[in-house]
Amino acid sequence: MSDTDDAEQELGVTKSKEYETGEWYAEVVRKAGLANYAPEGMSGFIVTRPRAYELWERMQGFLDAKFKETGVRNAYFPMFIPESYLEREKDIVEGFDPEVAWVTHAGHDELEERLAVRPTSESIITPYIARWVRSHRDLPLRVNQWCSVVRWEATETKPFFRTKEFLWQEGHTAHATHEDAWEETMLRLDQYESTYEDFLAVPVLRGRKPDHDKFPGADTTTTVEALMPDGKSVQGGTSHHLGTSFAEAFGITYSDEAEEETLAHTTSWGLSWRALGALIMTHSDDQGLVLPPTVAPEQVVVVPIWQEDTRDEVLEYAEGVAEELREAGVRVELDDRDTRNPGFKFNEHELHGVPVRFEIGPHEVEDREVTVVHRPDGEQSTVAREGIADAAQVHLDEVFAKLYAAAEENLEGGVRDADDRAGILGTIGQHGGYVRAPWCGEEACEGEIKEQIAAEIVMVPFEDEDDLVDADHDETCAICGEAAERTAYFAKSY
Amino acid sequence: MSDTDDAEQELGVTKSKEYETGEWYAEVVRKAGLANYAPEGMSGFIVTRPRAYELWERMQGFLDAKFKETGVRNAYFPMFIPESYLEREKDIVEGFDPEVAWVTHAGHDELEERLAVRPTSESIITPYIARWVRSHRDLPLRVNQWCSVVRWEATETKPFFRTKEFLWQEGHTAHATHEDAWEETMLRLDQYESTYEDFLAVPVLRGRKPDHDKFPGADTTTTVEALMPDGKSVQGGTSHHLGTSFAEAFGITYSDEAEEETLAHTTSWGLSWRALGALIMTHSDDQGLVLPPTVAPEQVVVVPIWQEDTRDEVLEYAEGVAEELREAGVRVELDDRDTRNPGFKFNEHELHGVPVRFEIGPHEVEDREVTVVHRPDGEQSTVAREGIADAAQVHLDEVFAKLYAAAEENLEGGVRDADDRAGILGTIGQHGGYVRAPWCGEEACEGEIKEQIAAEIVMVPFEDEDDLVDADHDETCAICGEAAERTAYFAKSY
Repeated sequence: MSDTDDAEQELGVTKSKEYETGEWYAEVVRKAGLANYAPEGMSGFIVTRPRAYELWERMQGFLDAKFKETGVRNAYFPMFIPESYLEREKDIVEGFDPEVAWVTHAGHDELEERLAVRPTSESIITPYIARWVRSHRDLPLRVNQWCSVVRWEATETKPFFRTKEFLWQEGHTAHATHEDAWEETMLRLDQYESTYEDFLAVPVLRGRKPDHDKFPGADTTTTVEALMPDGKSVQGGTSHHLGTSFAEAFGITYSDEAEEETLAHTTSWGLSWRALGALIMTHSDDQGLVLPPTVAPEQVVVVPIWQEDTRDEVLEYAEGVAEELREAGVRVELDDRDTRNPGFKFNEHELHGVPVRFEIGPHEVEDREVTVVHRPDGEQSTVAREGIADAAQVHLDEVFAKLYAAAEENLEGGVRDADDRAGILGTIGQHGGYVRAPWCGEEACEGEIKEQIAAEIVMVPFEDEDDLVDADHDETCAICGEAAERTAYFAKSY
Repeated sequence: MSDTDDAEQELGVTKSKEYETGEWYAEVVRKAGLANYAPEGMSGFIVTRPRAYELWERMQGFLDAKFKETGVRNAYFPMFIPESYLEREKDIVEGFDPEVAWVTHAGHDELEERLAVRPTSESIITPYIARWVRSHRDLPLRVNQWCSVVRWEATETKPFFRTKEFLWQEGHTAHATHEDAWEETMLRLDQYESTYEDFLAVPVLRGRKPDHDKFPGADTTTTVEALMPDGKSVQGGTSHHLGTSFAEAFGITYSDEAEEETLAHTTSWGLSWRALGALIMTHSDDQGLVLPPTVAPEQVVVVPIWQEDTRDEVLEYAEGVAEELREAGVRVELDDRDTRNPGFKFNEHELHGVPVRFEIGPHEVEDREVTVVHRPDGEQSTVAREGIADAAQVHLDEVFAKLYAAAEENLEGGVRDADDRAGILGTIGQHGGYVRAPWCGEEACEGEIKEQIAAEIVMVPFEDEDDLVDADHDETCAICGEAAERTAYFAKSY
């Protein structure tokens, strides 16, 4: 490990996660070497440092493998979209126009037509899908790209949660039928759920966005939502059934088996580096970053503790342990720097979120053991040197399980019910988290809550999943008292 | 395999590689499903389809692993650079200003300062390196990013060779001494050479660019150059020793062991998707794409050939063969479509560049054999079913060796010597390729050649590698007759 990240580093985190969540988050991001803010003139942009980019690469690897197993192929489309293309789907232009960065000049010349820096790529990808699809045999057609997009929002910057440029993937597919497109929409939502739960140890809820909060042009926008420790919800990834609106705007038709020209049905789905924000925010603590072993760049750090007279035997033993772990496929780092004392090293690796620490001193050598310490709870135990690689895996799994359990407890405890306006306002005001309430389906009712406490409907559960409102019963909307159509989850959100 | 790519596909390539290289190249790119041109208003941009993007991903995997083994960490920097930052290194702004795409508006507002879409990122990365480096212990510092950049050149578009936006990686490093930076420069050049030679089967020459053709602000620009079959050179990747010019412009200093504030020495190095252009151009032929097995998405295609009465046994046998290859780690596709006849399949897989074809009919089943056909030379042989995975690997290695040998023969036969102006002009005019000639070091002499036949000095060999001009001898410049300082390689180039 290089000292590269140390330059700006004071090891201690000074802010409290519980009482100053925003400042604490910013401090962890900076001190753990994850990101810096961009220079003046570019507020809203960040520099993603290697410690954060490694997290992105690992998550990308996990999700990209799932995509490839299920028929998705990566491609790359131009980063600019001609204004006339953006205007072809009216909801898209209305939805994104206020946030578009425009290229107007190239070299010393003004362009004839302005080019949008992509805020999302439906308007440049769909016309090509239209060229590539001729027959029902060309369907389904699935492409995905990993890239960055730009949305010029005027809100406060929060690394990975709110930035004007962000890394993401965007998948775009075309299908023969509405049902096929719906299956695709849900398959990608499942994969996002799995990325959060199985890889990032962040449990999520899933459902639809209310109609008034759908992706521009979409029939249905589905979402996974994660609850942060401060009681706010994060929209973790969205998968859109676009119906035929983009197919109509850009002319995706295919000749079906009866050789009739038929409109295709399309989907798009995206997951951004906001997942890293949720990861960092969920698990980390007042000592710094906490990472599940799945995504951690180093899973185990071996810290040898020696005096002058025990140095050689301790180092040799520690090297053997590290080597055995490495051969077993564990991502291990041996921290044998002699410029730093063990206490400094412990603090530094805690700050960086290494899930498991092996401490090795003369006692461990003598007893043929290793002292194992878990991040974040400091649980300490002793394991035998014999079979150390298997033991390491057991401890890594334990750390993952602990992190998941804590996040799950937060989520489960964070869902409460209410059946009137005062209940919604009071519960969110007092506890944060989600409030489930029957809802008539009207945006106006959400508006009343939003106006008072800046909470909104982040999700409506799927019909077959956890919906309180039964069509046969006669619940009434918690806000207006009219007949309730759906259960809504109200929450403040990032 | 889906029929996705077939929509625009007629299988036959109609142009001749030998006689109409440019048109042939464009046709292969289109018909093999590699790329499309971008829409009106965006001439110079391309859409990179999955078949090409897979090549990029594989090459990226090869090179990225080398980077990571040698201390490089990936990061991500903003895609925009404030104009004032671009202006801080004067050579950069002079070199790139005519080609920069400018963002001037965001949403409905004009920006206070224009933002350049990155043409290269020294001007945004170096200030952060300056923040991260404090002490000699922070050095060397190495970051790399995989991204796209935009250079608004007004030349004719040629997919992967000349496009206004292109994918690349750019590495940026800082070092304590000039020598350390030179070692880094050469290490990255070695890795580019290996990527071409060991992965893409494209042999290259290596050397420096003449001083008047260096990267803006660089002390030395090194290059690998590949010779295309039409006699033109491709600059395959460049690695720059930037001396202290960027460290001065952006203030990278470190306290050395004596605690003196000292300027760092920096490098940058980039390889773009031009490597894919060189790959396609070098190996492909009048039947379509040809790929070495290293980079081919499918290494072996198994084509079962059946009649109604032999269908089951042939298919079962073919599935067993494909499965055995897959288990051995060979990228194999079983083409069992019954909507296409074997002849169509052969043509299609040839167009797509699958290196090895296995043909399996009733005879092969009966004799427990497989018929093996190489791309591109059609060499056919029979191998036993027993041990088929090992046999496949042998054939894949043979195909790689054949492709490399052919490209090497082209390169070796393409280097000729001349010692006067007429010799340079005549040799390049007649044969293309490289002409080695003693050169005084003055740009004016290159200018005389450039003016007449649009050839330039693409490379000057390193002192210890293949330099004809010996300091103790008295060669004279082939153009002006003054004392020669160096050997120059003249060629036309992409």
